[in-house]
Amino acid sequence: MNIKGFVEHKKEHLVTWRRQFHQYPEVGWTEFVTTYKIHQTLTSLGFKDIHVGKEALSSDTRMGVPPAHVLKEEEERALSEGVPSSFLERMEGGHTGLVATLDSGKKGPHIALRFDIDALPITESESHEHYPSRIGFASTRTGQMHACAHDGHTAIGLGVASFLAEHIEQLQGRYTLLFQPAEEGSRGAKSMVQKGWLDEVDFFLSGHIGVHFDRSVGDVSATSGGFLATTKCDASFKGISAHAGKAPEKGKNALLAAATASIHLHGISRHGDGKTRVNVGTLHAGSGRNIIPEKAEIQLETRGATVELNQYMVSEAERIIQASAALHDVEATIEIVGDGVDATSDEWFIPLIEQVAVKSDLIQNVIPKDVIGASEDAAYMINRVQERGGKATYLIFGTPLANGHHHSEFDYQEDVLSVAVDVLVRAISELQGNEV
Amino acid sequence: MNIKGFVEHKKEHLVTWRRQFHQYPEVGWTEFVTTYKIHQTLTSLGFKDIHVGKEALSSDTRMGVPPAHVLKEEEERALSEGVPSSFLERMEGGHTGLVATLDSGKKGPHIALRFDIDALPITESESHEHYPSRIGFASTRTGQMHACAHDGHTAIGLGVASFLAEHIEQLQGRYTLLFQPAEEGSRGAKSMVQKGWLDEVDFFLSGHIGVHFDRSVGDVSATSGGFLATTKCDASFKGISAHAGKAPEKGKNALLAAATASIHLHGISRHGDGKTRVNVGTLHAGSGRNIIPEKAEIQLETRGATVELNQYMVSEAERIIQASAALHDVEATIEIVGDGVDATSDEWFIPLIEQVAVKSDLIQNVIPKDVIGASEDAAYMINRVQERGGKATYLIFGTPLANGHHHSEFDYQEDVLSVAVDVLVRAISELQGNEV
Amino acid sequence: MNIKGFVEHKKEHLVTWRRQFHQYPEVGWTEFVTTYKIHQTLTSLGFKDIHVGKEALSSDTRMGVPPAHVLKEEEERALSEGVPSSFLERMEGGHTGLVATLDSGKKGPHIALRFDIDALPITESESHEHYPSRIGFASTRTGQMHACAHDGHTAIGLGVASFLAEHIEQLQGRYTLLFQPAEEGSRGAKSMVQKGWLDEVDFFLSGHIGVHFDRSVGDVSATSGGFLATTKCDASFKGISAHAGKAPEKGKNALLAAATASIHLHGISRHGDGKTRVNVGTLHAGSGRNIIPEKAEIQLETRGATVELNQYMVSEAERIIQASAALHDVEATIEIVGDGVDATSDEWFIPLIEQVAVKSDLIQNVIPKDVIGASEDAAYMINRVQERGGKATYLIFGTPLANGHHHSEFDYQEDVLSVAVDVLVRAISELQGNEV
Amino acid sequence: MNIKGFVEHKKEHLVTWRRQFHQYPEVGWTEFVTTYKIHQTLTSLGFKDIHVGKEALSSDTRMGVPPAHVLKEEEERALSEGVPSSFLERMEGGHTGLVATLDSGKKGPHIALRFDIDALPITESESHEHYPSRIGFASTRTGQMHACAHDGHTAIGLGVASFLAEHIEQLQGRYTLLFQPAEEGSRGAKSMVQKGWLDEVDFFLSGHIGVHFDRSVGDVSATSGGFLATTKCDASFKGISAHAGKAPEKGKNALLAAATASIHLHGISRHGDGKTRVNVGTLHAGSGRNIIPEKAEIQLETRGATVELNQYMVSEAERIIQASAALHDVEATIEIVGDGVDATSDEWFIPLIEQVAVKSDLIQNVIPKDVIGASEDAAYMINRVQERGGKATYLIFGTPLANGHHHSEFDYQEDVLSVAVDVLVRAISELQGNEV
Repeated sequence: MNIKGFVEHKKEHLVTWRRQFHQYPEVGWTEFVTTYKIHQTLTSLGFKDIHVGKEALSSDTRMGVPPAHVLKEEEERALSEGVPSSFLERMEGGHTGLVATLDSGKKGPHIALRFDIDALPITESESHEHYPSRIGFASTRTGQMHACAHDGHTAIGLGVASFLAEHIEQLQGRYTLLFQPAEEGSRGAKSMVQKGWLDEVDFFLSGHIGVHFDRSVGDVSATSGGFLATTKCDASFKGISAHAGKAPEKGKNALLAAATASIHLHGISRHGDGKTRVNVGTLHAGSGRNIIPEKAEIQLETRGATVELNQYMVSEAERIIQASAALHDVEATIEIVGDGVDATSDEWFIPLIEQVAVKSDLIQNVIPKDVIGASEDAAYMINRVQERGGKATYLIFGTPLANGHHHSEFDYQEDVLSVAVDVLVRAISELQGNEV
Repeated sequence: MNIKGFVEHKKEHLVTWRRQFHQYPEVGWTEFVTTYKIHQTLTSLGFKDIHVGKEALSSDTRMGVPPAHVLKEEEERALSEGVPSSFLERMEGGHTGLVATLDSGKKGPHIALRFDIDALPITESESHEHYPSRIGFASTRTGQMHACAHDGHTAIGLGVASFLAEHIEQLQGRYTLLFQPAEEGSRGAKSMVQKGWLDEVDFFLSGHIGVHFDRSVGDVSATSGGFLATTKCDASFKGISAHAGKAPEKGKNALLAAATASIHLHGISRHGDGKTRVNVGTLHAGSGRNIIPEKAEIQLETRGATVELNQYMVSEAERIIQASAALHDVEATIEIVGDGVDATSDEWFIPLIEQVAVKSDLIQNVIPKDVIGASEDAAYMINRVQERGGKATYLIFGTPLANGHHHSEFDYQEDVLSVAVDVLVRAISELQGNEV
Repeated sequence: MNIKGFVEHKKEHLVTWRRQFHQYPEVGWTEFVTTYKIHQTLTSLGFKDIHVGKEALSSDTRMGVPPAHVLKEEEERALSEGVPSSFLERMEGGHTGLVATLDSGKKGPHIALRFDIDALPITESESHEHYPSRIGFASTRTGQMHACAHDGHTAIGLGVASFLAEHIEQLQGRYTLLFQPAEEGSRGAKSMVQKGWLDEVDFFLSGHIGVHFDRSVGDVSATSGGFLATTKCDASFKGISAHAGKAPEKGKNALLAAATASIHLHGISRHGDGKTRVNVGTLHAGSGRNIIPEKAEIQLETRGATVELNQYMVSEAERIIQASAALHDVEATIEIVGDGVDATSDEWFIPLIEQVAVKSDLIQNVIPKDVIGASEDAAYMINRVQERGGKATYLIFGTPLANGHHHSEFDYQEDVLSVAVDVLVRAISELQGNEV
Repeated sequence: MNIKGFVEHKKEHLVTWRRQFHQYPEVGWTEFVTTYKIHQTLTSLGFKDIHVGKEALSSDTRMGVPPAHVLKEEEERALSEGVPSSFLERMEGGHTGLVATLDSGKKGPHIALRFDIDALPITESESHEHYPSRIGFASTRTGQMHACAHDGHTAIGLGVASFLAEHIEQLQGRYTLLFQPAEEGSRGAKSMVQKGWLDEVDFFLSGHIGVHFDRSVGDVSATSGGFLATTKCDASFKGISAHAGKAPEKGKNALLAAATASIHLHGISRHGDGKTRVNVGTLHAGSGRNIIPEKAEIQLETRGATVELNQYMVSEAERIIQASAALHDVEATIEIVGDGVDATSDEWFIPLIEQVAVKSDLIQNVIPKDVIGASEDAAYMINRVQERGGKATYLIFGTPLANGHHHSEFDYQEDVLSVAVDVLVRAISELQGNEV
């Protein structure tokens, strides 16, 4: 197998795919167009076993699915973008993403790779300083943006799929490619895990572009840990409206309860045992200027270096939300809509990736053990693979970053796409002899 | 003129009109269907001089007009409700409301009456306890409700119009009926004043159903004061988004700035010189749960018993908004979108209404001088009439109230409609001989 | 009786007394030196029936008495200032203030007058702009100041006492002079009322220097109302200390609970029915910089135009304090340490004071009905007198004010002292014939 | 040298000393009695070169020294406790602590050891659960407590001093014992460093009892790092007082500014690069209940895993304090009163302590590299020693902890004292041959 030649040849495709996905971002559980494009490409590559909708996902374990009327509108949008209604029907109710499998027919390892495909609710910068805007492939959808490199991850997934399709004769064992929806908010991985896709996997690989600011293209982290456990929840505050001029004291102010909660949630005490995080990402309250606000809603998340630290944050958050409601004499209800766990990569992969690096011109430097320092939905998959006796790793593909993840001018160097494909297909190649 | 007979005969019409308007509430500057219904009714009564759109309003002095895309959607809604496109064109860009004039051709006073027609962004209660829901004429539009009796005011306006149309032969002078849009938020009166409608008015009458909790149907306040001066403004906070797990310190949190501002705005010190008010009615912030919120917007209002007291509130509010932004290292911009002034009714009307009461069976009790204790956009009209030498009053039509104004179960007794029409047409009758 | 001559002759004494009291301010229940000076002066005037300590006060109904160790220190201070220990013993435990009575032996009205004598915990300004500092009679006690004119009230009381002593032969009826301690915080009047001093009073007069900014010396308000009902309370927060660097999450932060409560107490919604007030006057929390604060204490007060409005404030305050504690997972306890009621002067005094004004050169202008707009402990006395069938008024003695009450540069024109004595002794003179 | 025998023999002394210091705690810069007791003991052991006052400390680089009048009172207290006035004079102005030196007269290493001696402003628990209270050696000073084991550190210092005094004939080189005041708040080390005591040191040892909860007596950490950089600062808020009932709007509320700052300081965003801390340890505001508070003061500290992270916290804190002042229209001033740096122990000590452990019965387990996770003033000394070419370590002496450091029921097992002395004197013994 001439991997070097394959990667050089794919380089242009990877950039083209990345830019196409970048121009059409879709947030979690609404990746209708994205899923269709992936499906089309895999089909054209010759993939036959492609599982979509409830075949790919355990419907009930999906978290944070948008309300039905939003999904309806989004499906109509996808229809107007050219997704056939027959294909849309398979994804009905927000069952996006897909799983493609390929069997060499020969004895060998079962290798699974996961690529996340969703975007974020951020309006992309139109600044000339921002490469996608300057070059002309910025998001065409106001309010949505690929600001966490999942466009690149999807392109890498198609690159790996191309490799498998072209070289299956030379490969052993079987392959599962998971194009996962709704990674943001840790909402999607669990439903793929529950469907059983990871239950018989020998080797699992996933990874992320970027993560650190000070890396070069060619830096590759063989394993990483430090996944933050996380809980995503929504809180609603219900008060009583009243005329703000005539009798303000008759109102029960839900807006102020939500504001109080937000401020104090960000003030939860740091913890001596390790890293914690909290964010109130959205707050919507009130109906009119001269009405004491009757309703308010916040969307928040907590994180912790361990499940215990995250639980500390959740407990504090619950008390603060209820007390903030009491402070303004309104009612609060809290709903958990997503959660993520911590996970550890197998150090078994360190020598493997070091060996890969020796053979590759593109890999300049291997970091044996790296730290993510954020939540990552793949943790569910890693844990399942390890529980069942397989080995799993989460790589990091280095690149300078123009701005941090989730920033409206987030960007990375497109050369990283080839590096990532190079690492992954070489790792697949190295794994041929192995089986757990 | 048999006023008693006229009012008795109109009683049922008033209730019907009121319920029709109640079922189809429209918030300020989107009263397309409401305006059309008023226009149809006046036309059927024989009114010829009806001024709609830019004929009725000074376009530029309208305040708090919704953005163009919202108006577009609302116009489409009106079209689908059966408002002819030719009529819609006259109101294009949110020029709702209308002014109808009638001239007796005989020398006599110029009498103007004003009726406000807009609804509020409140979802009406579906409770069986709530009369409109029990009887079946509750709002058909989720999120909008006539919770301040403007449905009744509009019905009263049509009742007075009927009287004028039927009795114009017996009347002297000329009549101007102002069906004003966007009273809520003190956004509409100024644009009718600027158009000149109040410049040559001898006598101006307006009024409100309800206001006080402990009144009976038949109680009428001849004059009222205590209008609160008010300022309506919007504040926007602009920060920087960032990944809430990976690098929260890189974000500048606009949501927290808005929350901080909201809490402290409600904490502006009470003032030793008199009544003040403040309300942050809406707060919208953030785009996604795991993103440090980059944007936040609040809609607020201040009020004061005098223009000076309101100015104190506005000055405090401005400082608090800017300091709250500084506290979170974000930028704030403030825009004034509405304002209201104080006003005083002419006591000249007290004996007039007392005289009216003697002749009426419906009026049980006259309160000579009453207090509103809220803002009222009619203040602009009262002030203009008085500046130009005319006399003006603002009446209050008593009724028990199920709940306070702007409450989702606000309601009043429909008998008050007949009383109000009775008072107004009798006042018109008494004013025949007079001229300022 | 040559009242004009008497007042002119006393003018200099009044200023001297006022400055003496001003130089030696003492806060509520520690007026040991002040009480002794009053006692000495009254004795030198010939008063025989002077009631001190538990003879003057109902011990148990005193409110907000400082803790025993503070009283001890203050008594030692008084001793070192020359107050005889025998006299100090009569005041032991903070039983300050006194009641002097004088009986003409002739049938006639029982007239009571009340003068408050305590100072405030404010450090007086040393600015040259500030008259007492410039002239050299500023407070000699750092942290304490007569910033509410009680120095003048005490001087006026001695002026009235002089008049009674000099003219008792020409007068009828009997006289009770109440030199009340601890007016600030509404803590003292109740204990004099409970002792029965007001039970048989026909006419009660009290009053205040200043109150309004825009008045001249010579302006006198015959009656006043608008006393704010008030509640004074202390809240304590009890948390758990912890090492702020090592394990901050193990602490329960009482300081933050008190801070949260303070901010939200000032944000209690204004009330549509009338004037309300709230103030957190002091906050003390924490023991060391690197320790999570375990304890916090706040002193606060609420006020309302009516007892109901004040009760609304108290109820809101209680909920906010408890919810703020819950927000930070600490315990809160609330103790009521003072309260004041509303009261109304008898309009019966209006013609009386107008008659007085006719005869006086010093009174330039009588305001029949005035508004205080603050709390005033005399309200307890007024209510008791009226309950028992007597008549009561609370006068206001006009003067320009350099700065507002309770400001570190509060000051008034000393001419007002003569005017006040003139009004009060002329009123006594007019009341001779009367009896309720 | 029979170290085992020496330590067994000293065991009882160590406990006695510890309990004596525990009973009489003194906070930073007021350790007059403590210093005197140390001096007496060292003298009785035969130490001749004992440096007290300005001989031991660089006066100007002391930080956070209490105001003169407090020091005066504390000196009087010490006098009444029996400290001779001649000795007190040497410490005048808060120059507490001392440095003792001992020279063997033989060529050899210069070894310095540091023991911190100050207590905390915490009231010790009287609970029967709390060992010092149950046994009867709890603090005799309300509001002060040895809640961070410095009582034990001082006892260990005297144990080491005994060893040196008894074995100086058998030892080489010279010895410097630093009994450091004001470690809490990172206020004292710098002034000993500036005096030059660490400039010629070959080996520096210091350490802490406790730190971790899950350790046993016999666990010893050979080196430790993770010292948090820290800044201690005071902020003052200056507003304007006003009558809280009459004209609250005339006040500028300093209490609310301090409360706002406190809440938002605790809400400074966590940082992606590592550990940060913030604590507002005290807040004092206002003078009287019915006065808008004119003044407020807070004492706070920030910490960070690196100097950069601490600087991030300081910058955020400054902005928040100024913006909180602006929010309430008052003035804020900030003063830096202490700071601490990070430091790293030399790993050179790891084999040394492991060797020591082999010879000792008391040491059960050596942790080669440990983490403090708090600030420690010794960091200044470690850095100086290393800058000048010496080697330094900071040990941790394990013990179960009843409660965390700075808790009112903090306690440790007294056996740890012998272990610590055993480790230190064995380390001294091992170092005999060495010189840097």
